[in-house]
Amino acid sequence: MAKKTAPDSTRRSEKSRRAIYDAALALVSEVGYQKTTIEGIAARAGVGKQTIYRWWSSKADVLLEAFIDLSAQAAEAAAHPEAIGEQAEYEIPDTGDLEADLKLVLRATVDELLDPKFEAPWRALAAEGMVNQRLGAELVGKLLEPQLQLYVKRLRAAQEQGAVRPDIDPRIALELFVSPLAQRWLQYAGPISYEYALHGLAPR
Amino acid sequence: MAKKTAPDSTRRSEKSRRAIYDAALALVSEVGYQKTTIEGIAARAGVGKQTIYRWWSSKADVLLEAFIDLSAQAAEAAAHPEAIGEQAEYEIPDTGDLEADLKLVLRATVDELLDPKFEAPWRALAAEGMVNQRLGAELVGKLLEPQLQLYVKRLRAAQEQGAVRPDIDPRIALELFVSPLAQRWLQYAGPISYEYALHGLAPR
Repeated sequence: MAKKTAPDSTRRSEKSRRAIYDAALALVSEVGYQKTTIEGIAARAGVGKQTIYRWWSSKADVLLEAFIDLSAQAAEAAAHPEAIGEQAEYEIPDTGDLEADLKLVLRATVDELLDPKFEAPWRALAAEGMVNQRLGAELVGKLLEPQLQLYVKRLRAAQEQGAVRPDIDPRIALELFVSPLAQRWLQYAGPISYEYALHGLAPR
Repeated sequence: MAKKTAPDSTRRSEKSRRAIYDAALALVSEVGYQKTTIEGIAARAGVGKQTIYRWWSSKADVLLEAFIDLSAQAAEAAAHPEAIGEQAEYEIPDTGDLEADLKLVLRATVDELLDPKFEAPWRALAAEGMVNQRLGAELVGKLLEPQLQLYVKRLRAAQEQGAVRPDIDPRIALELFVSPLAQRWLQYAGPISYEYALHGLAPR
């Protein structure tokens, strides 16, 4: 995050990075992943393409860090909501009502998956991660797993409150309601909606 | 399927198709999807590249039809096991014990997902389907959905037998145990195993 005490060169390079991330996300949305090039990202961000090659080895790596940066911004905003002027969601709330809290988060997830600003780049990155195991592992380790750990934390709290059976493994249980949504979205395997997202929580 | 009464030209073209499918699947496994070209597939199949371009517009389309053909062969083998000399699995068995039947199928699915002969091409096709909506829709309509309908059929039978609550929608219920496995595999999001695959069936 750009602190006021950062030296000029750090702030300049931080600004360039953000411009590059924004350019990459916008280009993939507008022209598609195949037609997005490092040259195109550089031109749109107003930097030389060597600046990009100095930091990243591929457009997929740029996208990955763009999403990591968005996630870090969300965490920062959640930690200092007063500085940003709006409440950002980063933790899963704990109102004591597990079902209500999960519904809130799953609805927000549906909104994010369908957000036209992020859908194409997020989809392109996920597809690249499926055929490039190194990138896939980074995507999971730096983005997916930290998100899933928020569910683990909330489910553990629910176990302590006696709302979830103690013998359930939270890391596995969360996949029962997160993965159906993820697979529908990833594979265009069916419509996703608030209603659908909440099926995994329905009493059985 | 090649019938004995088919004219020579049909049999010849059927043979070419199968050679092209085999070449495409093998090449993607050996050199990866990026380096697989229509020219490479043609050379390995022993046909001219125009033969491939006459039937398909991209390597992804060749892969899609290769998997559809494998699936049709499995269905044919299941319908006429005596002609093939072995029992092929196409329907989900109905022994009256739903949990045992689903376990059998989920274990077979794990074996298929980890089969080195098919993992790379299947992964490449799924990734392509995520960024190419037309291909994604065909993949879902012609391959994924017919497989999922086998679960729907078995779950409906279980409802008629009183083993599953009548108000459960089988098309949605199946995703609760199929999707976690699919997402782990698609995104390298965690190890997949027989034990993991059966978690969705555990009593809760």
